[in-house]
This record gives sequence, structure tokens and C-alpha cells, in this order.
Amino acid sequence: MLQQNPVFIPGPTNIPDRLRRAMDQASWDHRAPDFPAFFHPLLDDLKSVFKTQMGEVLIFPSSGTGGLEASIVNTLSPGDKVLAASYGMFSQRWIEICRRFQIEVEVIDVEWGEAAPVDQFERVLASDSQHEIKAVLVTQNETATGVETNIASVREAMNRSNHPALLCVDGVSAIASVDFRMDEWGVDLAVAGSQKGFMLNTGLALVGVSQKALAAGKQAKLPRCYFDFVDMIAANKVGSFPFTAPVSLIYGLRESINMLQEEGLDNVFERHQRIAQGVRQAVEAWGLTLCGKNPALYSKTVSAIYVPDGFNSDTLVELAYKKYSVSYGLGLGKVAGRVFRIGHVGMMTDAMALSGIATIEMVMKDLDYPIELGSGVAAAQKFYRQSA
Amino acid sequence: MLQQNPVFIPGPTNIPDRLRRAMDQASWDHRAPDFPAFFHPLLDDLKSVFKTQMGEVLIFPSSGTGGLEASIVNTLSPGDKVLAASYGMFSQRWIEICRRFQIEVEVIDVEWGEAAPVDQFERVLASDSQHEIKAVLVTQNETATGVETNIASVREAMNRSNHPALLCVDGVSAIASVDFRMDEWGVDLAVAGSQKGFMLNTGLALVGVSQKALAAGKQAKLPRCYFDFVDMIAANKVGSFPFTAPVSLIYGLRESINMLQEEGLDNVFERHQRIAQGVRQAVEAWGLTLCGKNPALYSKTVSAIYVPDGFNSDTLVELAYKKYSVSYGLGLGKVAGRVFRIGHVGMMTDAMALSGIATIEMVMKDLDYPIELGSGVAAAQKFYRQSA
Amino acid sequence: MLQQNPVFIPGPTNIPDRLRRAMDQASWDHRAPDFPAFFHPLLDDLKSVFKTQMGEVLIFPSSGTGGLEASIVNTLSPGDKVLAASYGMFSQRWIEICRRFQIEVEVIDVEWGEAAPVDQFERVLASDSQHEIKAVLVTQNETATGVETNIASVREAMNRSNHPALLCVDGVSAIASVDFRMDEWGVDLAVAGSQKGFMLNTGLALVGVSQKALAAGKQAKLPRCYFDFVDMIAANKVGSFPFTAPVSLIYGLRESINMLQEEGLDNVFERHQRIAQGVRQAVEAWGLTLCGKNPALYSKTVSAIYVPDGFNSDTLVELAYKKYSVSYGLGLGKVAGRVFRIGHVGMMTDAMALSGIATIEMVMKDLDYPIELGSGVAAAQKFYRQSA
Amino acid sequence: MLQQNPVFIPGPTNIPDRLRRAMDQASWDHRAPDFPAFFHPLLDDLKSVFKTQMGEVLIFPSSGTGGLEASIVNTLSPGDKVLAASYGMFSQRWIEICRRFQIEVEVIDVEWGEAAPVDQFERVLASDSQHEIKAVLVTQNETATGVETNIASVREAMNRSNHPALLCVDGVSAIASVDFRMDEWGVDLAVAGSQKGFMLNTGLALVGVSQKALAAGKQAKLPRCYFDFVDMIAANKVGSFPFTAPVSLIYGLRESINMLQEEGLDNVFERHQRIAQGVRQAVEAWGLTLCGKNPALYSKTVSAIYVPDGFNSDTLVELAYKKYSVSYGLGLGKVAGRVFRIGHVGMMTDAMALSGIATIEMVMKDLDYPIELGSGVAAAQKFYRQSA
Repeated sequence: MLQQNPVFIPGPTNIPDRLRRAMDQASWDHRAPDFPAFFHPLLDDLKSVFKTQMGEVLIFPSSGTGGLEASIVNTLSPGDKVLAASYGMFSQRWIEICRRFQIEVEVIDVEWGEAAPVDQFERVLASDSQHEIKAVLVTQNETATGVETNIASVREAMNRSNHPALLCVDGVSAIASVDFRMDEWGVDLAVAGSQKGFMLNTGLALVGVSQKALAAGKQAKLPRCYFDFVDMIAANKVGSFPFTAPVSLIYGLRESINMLQEEGLDNVFERHQRIAQGVRQAVEAWGLTLCGKNPALYSKTVSAIYVPDGFNSDTLVELAYKKYSVSYGLGLGKVAGRVFRIGHVGMMTDAMALSGIATIEMVMKDLDYPIELGSGVAAAQKFYRQSA
Repeated sequence: MLQQNPVFIPGPTNIPDRLRRAMDQASWDHRAPDFPAFFHPLLDDLKSVFKTQMGEVLIFPSSGTGGLEASIVNTLSPGDKVLAASYGMFSQRWIEICRRFQIEVEVIDVEWGEAAPVDQFERVLASDSQHEIKAVLVTQNETATGVETNIASVREAMNRSNHPALLCVDGVSAIASVDFRMDEWGVDLAVAGSQKGFMLNTGLALVGVSQKALAAGKQAKLPRCYFDFVDMIAANKVGSFPFTAPVSLIYGLRESINMLQEEGLDNVFERHQRIAQGVRQAVEAWGLTLCGKNPALYSKTVSAIYVPDGFNSDTLVELAYKKYSVSYGLGLGKVAGRVFRIGHVGMMTDAMALSGIATIEMVMKDLDYPIELGSGVAAAQKFYRQSA
Repeated sequence: MLQQNPVFIPGPTNIPDRLRRAMDQASWDHRAPDFPAFFHPLLDDLKSVFKTQMGEVLIFPSSGTGGLEASIVNTLSPGDKVLAASYGMFSQRWIEICRRFQIEVEVIDVEWGEAAPVDQFERVLASDSQHEIKAVLVTQNETATGVETNIASVREAMNRSNHPALLCVDGVSAIASVDFRMDEWGVDLAVAGSQKGFMLNTGLALVGVSQKALAAGKQAKLPRCYFDFVDMIAANKVGSFPFTAPVSLIYGLRESINMLQEEGLDNVFERHQRIAQGVRQAVEAWGLTLCGKNPALYSKTVSAIYVPDGFNSDTLVELAYKKYSVSYGLGLGKVAGRVFRIGHVGMMTDAMALSGIATIEMVMKDLDYPIELGSGVAAAQKFYRQSA
Repeated sequence: MLQQNPVFIPGPTNIPDRLRRAMDQASWDHRAPDFPAFFHPLLDDLKSVFKTQMGEVLIFPSSGTGGLEASIVNTLSPGDKVLAASYGMFSQRWIEICRRFQIEVEVIDVEWGEAAPVDQFERVLASDSQHEIKAVLVTQNETATGVETNIASVREAMNRSNHPALLCVDGVSAIASVDFRMDEWGVDLAVAGSQKGFMLNTGLALVGVSQKALAAGKQAKLPRCYFDFVDMIAANKVGSFPFTAPVSLIYGLRESINMLQEEGLDNVFERHQRIAQGVRQAVEAWGLTLCGKNPALYSKTVSAIYVPDGFNSDTLVELAYKKYSVSYGLGLGKVAGRVFRIGHVGMMTDAMALSGIATIEMVMKDLDYPIELGSGVAAAQKFYRQSA
């Protein structure tokens, strides 16, 4: 196809050239004597992105899903109970992973479009006087609905109920794009993925692990090997991996963190927020609504947008790809067919965002949506120019 | 800068990834025994892009300007007279090149925004009964004003006046993007550049040479060496160059022609025309006017747009770059400050074009231009959707 | 470091430029409508590399170790018994993986340098009249000792003892480099890695699964999710992945298989054998011995070489890196300090192999090994020139 | 071809990955407001490589030959006389360029293998009391014969004869690889090429110009435009080019100079000398002789080696390519068929050099040269190990 349009899926992101170059390297021996001197500072800097000094951040060659599994198998035992809410495809996936490993999940079902139910969490935890609940699972950014949960408030609820459960956060589509503070928020397990805020190829799960989670691991009876934290930490300590290191992605991660540090994490977060706000202005101008129940919940990395009644979002996304060669996110799970998603995670500029807004406008018009061409673009332009 | 926006300059174009990969090669010995078997078919295919079977197309490591110089020094002698019109920066540049080489140029001054004056050419040629005029120089696409001259009509005028002068065409921002027929139109010298329709890095001048031009070269007394056609043809014949071959760009040229052939030249031309039309719809919606005097003259590779009275286009282009990291073309020469240019040569998609239109709209609004945000985008969207 | 020497580690290999380019791609939506049309033929071609028509080959984003784990957790239950031999670091690793998952491993300890003990396997299997042994694990190419086991002979032993156990092969440093015939040899589980014979970056485990293994999976009680075969097969069927697809490596795999097919698998195997033979000639000329007990066992992808008594191979490998910037494999496990390894898997030419031989000669001389400079090179040259 | 061997031609060199990445960039507007801030320091640093503070260094998109032409057309007039020696293909080429431009060349013919004849230069200059000779042309490193001329001694000869001629140096295969001091040696014109010591793709001629040469240019009557120094200097002053800038190569040049500065020019020179010495040791071990008449003349960037009587070096070079996919330099001009060349300019390591020596040894043996396999390698190894 004679094209190279940006993608508007919620990850993998558009990969900056600088990172493509960083990943495109000749083979380097991951057991070379100078590998540790390269690798140890990288681990330190990775910890600073997770904002942890006391914990560890581990790098697994796998997709983000592998990281979610790792967090479970390293800390829990069959029959253990965890608390989680189902409020979208990805929060639901984590629940299913747990069940595969014979973890009992107390699930709070929440309408899609809501965040994790902090009040209900608090009630459940407060009534769990035996502390049977070993962990609370939260998806910081529910990519299916474009909803962000305030992790600090979950921590506060846990504190108020004085509950010792681990706080486990699926930060795959959040970390390195939106505010995340592992130590300050008392997060025990935090999972990120190379293909989101780190803007790299898919292939690394990055797992933050607190000392408390490591301690819990000593009693954890679920079998594990590939994703074993203890093996990984021991190997990392001497500057190596328990298996062949994914060198290309590690080079990429080095450069990705360089970019994040040069821009400053706060500026990165603000940039994501700003791009997202422009998209939301467009949605409002179209007369459409976001999946998120209220503006405080809107995700900074993906906007999930309801199509009007009588329209099918699958058709919309497919036509965008076939007619204009531009990719948007499909609706998933409960909102399949009813929602399409504009991803804006990672390196996204005003000009790129506007091309995504403008193109989907054309597709909506092609399908006789009751919107006005240029209306969303104009609304986004107005916001971008004033905030630039 | 944390960005990778497309550029909207009239070349160098946005380079397709496929061509970046083709140019990114390890060293290959340009004197290797298998180089000729690679190179000869490439030259043949290059001729098919110029639509010549009888002529040659030569590849010089230089910018396009070097190709214009090559066409002069290989065919003319000091004191020779040529006919040319000045209707923009680049037609004027060729006149100046001639003068550097003591060529007498009969210049027809034309208002910028007009094409080459075919009628006046015909009158001058008809009155040149001694055939003192050795060559007629025409810039097919005047990049400064966004105006295309109909080369076939120049040939017809020359035929009607029965004049034997060489027909020399600056096709730098035209060839491989718009229709060009070297043999059919009787073009004797045709200059293209790697960084325009071929979508490569800057660095190659591609020069089409007819047998008539080669014959003229035998009497041409201007000194030459680097750009000598005879040396180049002799070396090419045995599959080599008279000097070190620019191998990276030659690999790129191979792949570029592959892409052009896969898409089909007619489809390539139509794609350029279609993208250009969308931009023109935007200009009209803004209430602005193109530099070209009438629609038949509008360039398919670049749109030169007058800013309203009282505004300075330099400020516009500079702010676009500084505030939004997007590059547009400045006004040049006589229209400096009064014109900005949106380049749409090479690999440009609807989504990319819309981002260029949307961004410059923001900049115009930032500078209080009397335009409506989204208006140009809407007009372009309407055209693109209906024609896609 | 001002260098770009080839590596002589037994994987990751030197990555051909063609594959680096193939992996260096802009983001493509792995859920795009045309992904299945790209992906399904790739899976078919991958099966042809494994030489299976009846089985499946699954692609997991993980290192090869992940693939070994996948083969266990998808087919066995806690307390199941498997038969394996320990004859090097990697055969031992698989045993340890099993134990992590509460699999009882009947281990036959073999001297390092020997292959898997087919006769003993046969005896054990023959005496297992209750068929308590659920699987036989074999490492085709033991990378630590440079020893290859004849998989066909293992199958024959199993057939002779009429034993229904699954035949599981760690082919990480073998498949796509040496002969492997999944269907013909009745292999039930076969694990390969992207960074060896496929010459790609580390990051994919490729797992061949027979119908018999899939059937066994229905009773397998080990918990699994990320590495679940059934999830993967279901997703693959509709052209997708159960999680984010590692698109860069998948592009690379497509091109890697193109290269293998263009060269022809038999030619690929012969090339590996030929390069290995040259290295062995050098070893003989040095008066050193290979770790493998007899020539029939010598690996075609890595040569493990004993250093003379009184020397430490760690020092050798470290000096090669520090003084000449060339990487060789360390001795691992039982032969740490006593063996160094020259990897020759993947794209390796005569010229490259000779530079590896020549450089390690210098290092040996630097450390006062009793060898003659140039002797190994001369022996390898003699072989390469005659066999080229 | 399934290979990626280094090349052993005397340029284009093996391109370091770091420079390939630097040249592989998305389009950047060469007229962008921030281009000058990037470009001016680059010009300054380029001057430091030429070791000039008082002169200018100009960057022309062309091969090195274009730079040689530029030095002539900018400083001389038709009928002017220059002094030059013919001692190889490239010194002869410059003479021919002069003649194309009606420059009278007083040629001193020297046996190939000798350097420029400083004594004879001095005699001729001393006897030119009318100062009819306007320039002295010297090829610092004659690539055809692998002979280096001491430029300082030429300057001294000119000083002794008190002659005001310009000193013009073809430094294409020398500058950035061997010592060069433009100001200290009073060099007026110095030509380098991107594909030699700068290790980039072919496509830039770098021309050092002294103030004296610029002053001479004011009287120079040869016509010029593309290569005009005055145009280039004027454009550079405001951070631009007189035509489209070759941005990819300019990025590459920036990174190339970074690499030279990081290593230190003196270390770069010493590295070239050291690699060359190893090659010479091999030549001696083979019982062959270099083209250069005595060791003081031997080039540090290329070794030209006589084949024994009765052998044809063309056959040798061709077989090396066809059988082993390794490129060496052919014999050129007077030594065609009698000499082959091992290029060692740019990024060349011990391991790479040894692979080049080892491979050509095999080819010589294939063709029944009276040499011993491994002998040259052993000699080079001995030298490299001791000097590393």
C-alpha cells in the first residue's frame, strides 16, 4: 500500500524514528563483559519511570499479558482470593487469568464506562476481617472503555480499611503516559508494556514489584519458571537474564527512557492530556459521547466513542482502513459494534491527531452519520491552538 | 523535538519507509562483476519513466541544479542564444545558469502565476529565420508559483514555426509525478531530481538526453568534465560510472521505480492530481487564491497560495514550524512574503494532506487571518471522500 | 567502540541486513482486516520449516525458554513423570523447568560431550509397562557441549519399545539450521527460537505441536494462560493473537522464511555443516579437542572447544572481547572455564568464519597457549577452498 | 546472496552502523528556521578535521571528482598553466580534468609506485621566474598505487623556490584517515570525499579553500555555476545551500565528525597506520611486493600488491567476488592486471582485516599462486597482537 499514515490504535503506538533506530542494531553479546555496565543504570532509570526506589522493575520478553500473569503466579497460591472489578475487556482479562490459576476472584461488576469502584472495594475490604483477600487488582487505564481509575484513591481506601492485601495495577496503557507513583501510592505490582508509553515494538512486559510483593512470593505456591521473579532478580543482579536477553528491545528501552527523561515525565503526561482533550472536543462537536461516564474518568491515552444508535462501529473502523488506510481501535467485548476508539498514546502531535480526527470524520460521513465535516477538526484545532 | 510530522514542502518529499530501507545498505562494490546486471535494467526502467526509447537517461550525483547545468554545458557553446521565459524562481535560475556560461538568453518576462508563454515563443521562433536560437528552455512545473506549463503545446509551437532548436525541460518537480513524454513531445533534454517524484534523498540529478541533443553536443564548446554526457554514456555502457557511483541512491532509485511501476505511472499522476485538488478546495474555502492565474495552470505537486493583504507569509511559515513543528514552503523571489506553499509531491495520503491543511489553518488563525477553523479541512474532506 | 565485528556466539546470530530491514517497520495494526491474509500463509510456511503438515506451529512472544515451559504446561499434570537425560546446560535446564512444575523427571545422567542416551532411553521405556512416563525430552543440539542428538534414533527407540510417551524436542539451536522432520520423526513438541536459525532478534519462541500433544493437553492439569496452546490456536484460526502480536518480529519471520525458502532448507543445512567443518579443521590444527565425544556428535551450529589443561577459557573469552571486540561463547555449567565456544549458526560466510578463527588464535597466543598463529586459519582455509 | 562480508575496496568503506542510522532520516526541511543552528557548528567542526581556521570547507553534492573539478574552475582561467605529476590513475585523472578546461598542464611523468617528485617540482618552480605556473596539483594518496606523498615536503619545496602558485591537494582517499594540516602546510585547495575517511555513502565532495584561493578566484575566468565557491559561501553564511541541500548525507557528516572527534584524529590516523602495517606484513609473508617503491611511501588506506609474474590480478579479484563474495580493488591503468588492492580505509578492525587477508589467500591458492595458506594471516596476526 502506497502509504504511511499514523495509526490511531491504543498501542502499539507510532514508533518515533529515534526508537526505530535504537532497536535496529547488530547483534551484541548479552553475556559480554560490558553488558552489566549498560544494563544496571538502565534498570535504575526504569525504576525512576515507575517512581519506585524501594521496589524492583523486571523486564520480561513477553506481551503485557505475560506481565499480568507474572504478577499472579509470583505472589499467590491456588485457592487464594483476590478482589477485582470488571469494567472493561482488560480488567476482565486479568480476572480470567486469575481463574486459570485457580485463584478465587471476588468480582464487582461495574457498568462499562465506570472506573474501578473504590467505595465498594473499601466496603468489601473492611468486611474482610480475616484478610482472606490477598490482593486487589486494578486496571489503571481500561483501554476498552477509555476510562482511568485513580490509583491513589484505591490505596487510600485500602488504608482506611487497614487491609494488608497487595495492590496490583495493570498499568499497560498507562505507565509512562500518565501519572504513576509506585512507592507513593503503595503499589505492589505494576505492569507496563513496551508498545505503549515506551513507544517501542511489542515484546517486553515491564513489571514493578514491591518488597512486600517479593515477601509474599516466598509463600506463593503457584508454579512458575519463565516468569519467576526470584530468578530474574538474581540474574539481573549480575547484569544478566535467566535466558537469552531481548537485546534489540533493551537497546530500545534505553533510548525510550532517554527520551522520557529529556522531555520530563510531567511534560509527557501533560502532552498526553492535551492531545486527549483535543480529541474530546472533536467528539463533543460531532454530538457523540465518550464511553467514560464522566469527564473525570476520561483516559488520556485512548478515547472510546459511542457511535449513534443504528450504526455499527465495526463497519466504521473497517472502512477507515480499507478506504483511507488509517487504523482505529474497534469496540471490544460488551461495547463491540457500539464503540470505536481513537488511540493517542505515545508520540502524537497536534498535526497527527488532527489527521486522525479528520479521517474518521470522512468515514462517518461516508456512512451517513449525522455529523458535519470539519466540525470535529475545528473544535480540536481551537483547543490545540490555544493550548500550544 | 518529540515529533515526526510529515513535511509539506515541495520536495524533498516524505520518504516512504520502503525507500528508506532501500537506501540503507551496506557497501557494495560498484565495480563488482554483477553490478552491470543490476544497473542496465535499471537504466532501461528509468527510460520508461521518462517515456523515452530513443534517448538516454543519465544519473549524476548532484542536486537537480547540477542537472540543469549539465544540459547546458553539454549542448551549447559560449555566445549561443537560447529562448526562455522568466515566470518564477526556478525558470529564472536556469536563465542565470545560462548566463554564467556566456549563453545569450532571450528572456520573455511573464507575470508570475502565468505559464511559459507559448504564443510568444512561437512568434520569436518564427521570426528567427537564421535559427540563431539553439534551445528553448521550459520549466514544466514552476515550483515557486505552483504553475504547470503544457510541454506538448511548446513542442507544437516549435513545430509550427519549423524551428530546429532543442527543447529543454526542467522537470525536477514534475517528472514521475505528472505526465511527461520525452519521445512523444520531442523533448531533447529533461532534468529530474531524486528528491521529488522519486521520493528519495536529495543527491541525484536524472537527465534525459535525446539523440538530437547528443548530436548537438559534438559541436558544443563549453568546457565540461564531471557532467560530461559522453563520458557518462561510455561508462554506463559497460555498467559503470566515470567516478564513484552513488550506490545508496542507486539502490533507492531501483526500489523507487519498482514502486512507480507497481502503482502504474498513470495512477501515480492521478493520485497527485487528486491530492492537489483537495488542497485547492481548502484554499477556496479559506477565501484565498492560488498564485496560478487560472485553474488549468495549477500545479499537481505544489500549491502556492497568496496570503491576504496585510499579512506576511514568512511569519506564517515560521510560526507553523516553531509552534506545530510542521514545514511548509516559503514564498520565493517576487512573491516572497506574499505566498506560502503546500507541497504535495510524492507519497502523500488523504490523511497526511488533511493534517497539513488543518495545521496551517491553526497557524492562520493564530495570526488573525480572516478564515474559519475547519473550513478548508471540510472542503478537502468533501472532495477526498467523494473521489476516494 | 569503533567496530562492527561479527559475533561468534551460538545465537543470537549475526542478523542479515535484509532481516534487520524487515524488522524495522512502522506500526501496523495487528487487528487490521488484512492481517489474516498475511498471517495465515506465514503459519503454513512456518510449518514447512518444521516439516509438519499435521501439526501446528505456534508463535509466542518470549525467549526459547518460554517455549520449553509452554511445551510442559500444555501437556502434563503435576506428578506426571517424564524421561530425560542431562548432558549439558540446556538439557539440564529443561529438567529444572519440569521440576518447577512438579513433574517427576527420571534423569539419566550422561557425561557432558555425549548425546542423549538412546539405548538407555529404550531400556527405561521398555521397562515402563504401565506407561507412567508421559514424555521423553531431548535436546537436539546441546549448545553447551556442541553435541547433536539424532532425533530419528530416539523415535526408533520409542517405537521399538512401543511406548506412547510424547517425544519433546528442544530444537532451539537446531531448527532451521540442521535437519528436522517433525512429522516423519513423530515429534510431538518442538521448540525453536527466533534468534538462532531464523537469524532474527531474540523474542519469539516457535513451538511445533502434534495432534497427539494437543489431545494430551485436554487432560493436562498444569495451570497456564499466557502460553496456552488452545487459546493461541483459536486466535490464530481467525488470524489474530490472544494478546498484542509482536508485529516487528512477525515481519522478520516472514522475511526469514523467505530467505530459507529461496536458499532451500537442504542448502541451508549443508552450509551450516560446511562452515562447522572448517572450524573443526582449525581446532584439530591447534591440537585442541572438541567437547563432543566423537565426530558423529559434533554440532553444526556451535563448536565447544576444550582449552589445554592449565588454561581458563573465561579469561580467553574475556580477552577476545576486551582486546579485539569479538564475542565468543563462554563455557557453561560443568565445563565452565574449560571450554570456549565458537558459534556458527545462521548467516555465516567463509570470510566471517575465518575472522573468528583468526582472532581467537591471536587471543590464545596472547595467553601463551601452545598453538601456532595461522595454523587453524590455514586448516580451515584449505577445507573452505576445496568445498566452496 | 546470503552474505554480508566486509568490503576491501579503497572506498566506499564499510559504513559503521552508527552512520547508517544517522543517514537514515525522515525528511527535514533544509530551509527550516533551525537548520542554521545545526549547520554552522558542523561547518566549524569540518574545518577542524581539515585543520584550517583561516580557510573555508565547502560541501558539494557530488562525487570526489566533482570536488577536483570545483577546485580548478573556481581558481583558474583558460590557458593558465599548472604543474602536476602523473604517478597513478588518480593523479592522471586530475590532469585530464584540467585539460578539459583548457588548462595547460606541465606534467612530470613518474614511474607508478613513486610519490609526487618534490625535487623536480622544486626545479621547475625555481625556473619559472615569470610565475606562469598558477597551481601545483598533488594527489596525497594515490589510490591506484597505494602511495602517499608528503604534502609538507611539497610545501617546503614551493617555499624554497619562493613560488606563489596555489597548492592543490587531492585528499580524497587521505583526509580524515591520515595526517592532513591545511593551514600549517599552506594548502590552498583540498578535496575529500564522504565515502572514504568519513565512512559515509558516496555523494559529498568536501572542498577546503584557503583565502588565497578565494582571492585567486576573483580573476578566474573559467565558467562555473553549480560548483561556484562564492555562491556556496554566501549561502552557507546564512545557513543554507545555493540549491537543495543533501540532508541525509549532512546528517551523516555530523555523526561522522562526532565519531572522529570522540576517537581523536590522531588515534584515527594511528589506527589506519596500524591496520595497514598488518596487511603489509601479510604481503611480505606471501613473498609479494607492494606497488610503492619504498616503505616510506606506503599508503595507510590502501595496499596495492603486485601479483607474481604470469598471473592476472583481474582473475584474482573476480574469483574472490564470485567464489567468496568478497570485494577487493582491481588494478587500474598502467598496473591493470598486475596489481590487486586491499582497501583498509575507514572503520576496519583487526578481525575484519584478517578476514580480508585470509580470503584473498584462499583465492591465490585456488589460482595456484606460490603462497602458503595461513602465512599472511599469521604475519598479520603477529603484528596485530603485539600492537593492539
